[in-house]
Amino acid sequence: MTFVDGRHDRPIRTVRVGLADRGYDILIGEGLLARPDAFQGIAPGDAGALIVTNAIVGGLHAGHLIATLRHHHAAVEVLELPDGEAHKTIGTLDRIFETLLRLGADRRTVLYALGGGVIGDMTGFAAACFMRGVPFVQVPTTLLAQVDSSVGGKTGVNHPLGKNMIGAFHQPRRVVADLGTLATLPSRELVAGLAEVVKTGAVADAAFLDWIEAELPGLLRRDPDALEHAVARCCRIKAEIVRDDERESGRRAILNFGHTIGHAIEAGTGYGTWLHGEAVGCGMVLEAALSVQMGLLGDDQAGRLERIVGAASLPLRAPALGVDRYLQLMRHDKKSQAGRLRMVLLERLGQAAVYPIDDDAVAAVLRSAGVEA
Amino acid sequence: MTFVDGRHDRPIRTVRVGLADRGYDILIGEGLLARPDAFQGIAPGDAGALIVTNAIVGGLHAGHLIATLRHHHAAVEVLELPDGEAHKTIGTLDRIFETLLRLGADRRTVLYALGGGVIGDMTGFAAACFMRGVPFVQVPTTLLAQVDSSVGGKTGVNHPLGKNMIGAFHQPRRVVADLGTLATLPSRELVAGLAEVVKTGAVADAAFLDWIEAELPGLLRRDPDALEHAVARCCRIKAEIVRDDERESGRRAILNFGHTIGHAIEAGTGYGTWLHGEAVGCGMVLEAALSVQMGLLGDDQAGRLERIVGAASLPLRAPALGVDRYLQLMRHDKKSQAGRLRMVLLERLGQAAVYPIDDDAVAAVLRSAGVEA
Repeated sequence: MTFVDGRHDRPIRTVRVGLADRGYDILIGEGLLARPDAFQGIAPGDAGALIVTNAIVGGLHAGHLIATLRHHHAAVEVLELPDGEAHKTIGTLDRIFETLLRLGADRRTVLYALGGGVIGDMTGFAAACFMRGVPFVQVPTTLLAQVDSSVGGKTGVNHPLGKNMIGAFHQPRRVVADLGTLATLPSRELVAGLAEVVKTGAVADAAFLDWIEAELPGLLRRDPDALEHAVARCCRIKAEIVRDDERESGRRAILNFGHTIGHAIEAGTGYGTWLHGEAVGCGMVLEAALSVQMGLLGDDQAGRLERIVGAASLPLRAPALGVDRYLQLMRHDKKSQAGRLRMVLLERLGQAAVYPIDDDAVAAVLRSAGVEA
Repeated sequence: MTFVDGRHDRPIRTVRVGLADRGYDILIGEGLLARPDAFQGIAPGDAGALIVTNAIVGGLHAGHLIATLRHHHAAVEVLELPDGEAHKTIGTLDRIFETLLRLGADRRTVLYALGGGVIGDMTGFAAACFMRGVPFVQVPTTLLAQVDSSVGGKTGVNHPLGKNMIGAFHQPRRVVADLGTLATLPSRELVAGLAEVVKTGAVADAAFLDWIEAELPGLLRRDPDALEHAVARCCRIKAEIVRDDERESGRRAILNFGHTIGHAIEAGTGYGTWLHGEAVGCGMVLEAALSVQMGLLGDDQAGRLERIVGAASLPLRAPALGVDRYLQLMRHDKKSQAGRLRMVLLERLGQAAVYPIDDDAVAAVLRSAGVEA
C-alpha cells in the first residue's frame, strides 16, 4: 500500500509492527488527519465509527478527523471524555460502553482514539472488551503517545490501588501519527513525551541516545525534522521489541525502565498531579542510581542520563512520600513476584534487563534521594 | 497425564479442548473437588490462589476446594460475591480486582471460579483483565456451567443495556467438573441447565437429542450415569466447535440458538428474574417457530423440540414485554450487523446456522406467541 493521493503527494513514513494476523502499520507524517488515504482499508464501508477524545483535543482536531472518516464510514460519531489521568478509570470506561450501546454499535464498529496516552489506553481497552473485541485505531496527538503508548497494544485503566492494573493486550488496526498535532501541544506535555524518547534510547539504542542528547534543543523548540526522526526511531525500536515479545514475557519489560518508581510517584501524589512522562523521567534517574548501587552501571553513565533528563526540562526531584509508601506502592508493580520487587535496571546506556531487587537497596536509594516526608 | 492417585483410584474422564498453546483439559467425575490430582500442574508452587464463589456455593464446597488447593499453592484465599445474574456487573468485578490488589496478587496468581455461570463469567473476565491477564480455572458446580458456560473461554459481565456486552475471550487453564456438586443443586437450577443440554443436541447432534428425549426422566431425577453422559457429551461437542472457531467468527455462533430471544427475556424482565437457562429454553421454542416461518424447519420438528423443552419442565410462555421492546432489546445482540438482526435458526433438529432476519418476521412470531403487553 502506498499512501499517496492526488492533492497530498508527500509520501507517508510507515513502520510495520510484524505480528502475523495482528500486524499493522504506523503512519507518520504532517497533516495525516486530513488525508483520507491514511485511513483507507480499515473497515467495510457500512461499518460505523466512534471517535473517542477529550474536550481540548476534540476542539482542535475532531473536525478534521470526522471529515476524513466520512470517506470510509457510514456514520461517524464523537464522544468527549474528561481530560487527564485521574479519569482513566473503570467508571469513565463505562461511558464508552454506554455510548456504543445507545448508538447501536455492532462488532464491526471501529473506535478511533484521538488524543494522548489516557485516551488511547481507555479507548483501546473499551475496544478489547466491547462485545468481546472490536477494532480500534490509534490517532495519537501527543508526543508521548506518538513515540510510545499508541504502539504495542497495551491498553487499560488505573485502579486506586495501582496504575494500569486492569487492562488487556489488544493491538490497534493502525496507528496514524499526525506530526502537525504536536504544534498545539502544551510545553509541559511535549517535555513529558521527551521522557519516553530518552527512555527508548537508554534501554535499547545508545546511538539514538547520543542523537537525543545532541538534538534536545531542536526537540524542545519543536523542529519538525527532529520530531519526525524521534517519532520514527522510537516507533521502529518499539515495533521490533513488540514483534519479538508481544505479551511481555521477556524483553519487552525493558520498556518499563523508570516506570516502577514512576508509577509509584503517579499513584502516591494522586493520578494527574505528575504527568506520566514527568514521573517516568524522575523514575529513570532513581532507577539508574539503583543500577549503580547494584554494581551494574557506571556512576558517570548515571550522571550523564541525569543530565539528559534535566536538559529535557523534566523534574529530577522525587516527591517526599516517605520510603515506606514508595515500597508499598511499588509492590503492586506488575513485575513483582511472590511479594518480591523486580525492576528494569541499566547494564549500560543502551542496554537494560529485569532484576529481582531487595527492598533495602531500593530504600537506600530513595533515602539518599531525599524522599522521606 | 493420568489422573489417578493412591486413595482415589477411579479414573477421571477427560475431554481435551485442542487450542495449541491455549489448549486445556476438562475433567469430569464424582468427588473431584477433594482430589489433589485433579488440580495438579496448574501453577508453580509459590503462586497464590484466589477462589471466587458466592455465599451458597462457598458454604457447600469451598472447604473441600481450599483443602485440596493447599497441596498446590503457597496461599489460598476465598472471595464470596453476591449471588445471581443481577450482580454480574462491572461493579462486582471491581470487588475481585480490589481483593487481588489487597492480597498482593501478582501475574502468577491463579483465580478459581467455584460456582455457576455467573461466577465463571465474572471470574474469567477478571482474570482476563487483571494485570492484562492471569491464569484461571473453572470449577463449575451447576449443570448449566458444567455442560456449557465453563468451556470455551467466553467471559464477561452484563450492561444495563445488553447481556454479556462487556467481556473477553480468555481460556481457562483447566475445567474441573465435579458431578457430586449436582446433588445439592436446587431443582430450578438443574432444569435451567437442561436447556443448554437440549440446545447442544438441537444445533449439533440429532442422535444426542434422541438420547436426551429418552433420558429426560433420569436427568430430572439426577441419575448419576445420565448426568455424567450429558456433561461429557456436551463438553465433547463444545470442545470440537470451539477448537475450530475459538473467537466465533463462524460456526461457534450456532451455540447461541435460543439466546437472542433468551437474552431479551433476561434483560427485559430484569436480570435474575428468569434464570439464563429458563430464558434460553423459551427462546429456543420461539426461534424454532421462526425457523418454521422462514421455511427452514418442519412444523413437526419444531413441535417435537417444544415437547422436549416442556418435558424438561422449562417455561414455554414468553413474558409479555410487547413486540417493540423485544425488538429493541434484540437489536443489541452481538450478532447484529448495521442494525439488522441475525439469528441462529434450525435447518433440522441437529443442524443450525446464522441467518439475517427481518424485524417483521420476528414480530409475527412474537405476536402469535402472545407477548403483547
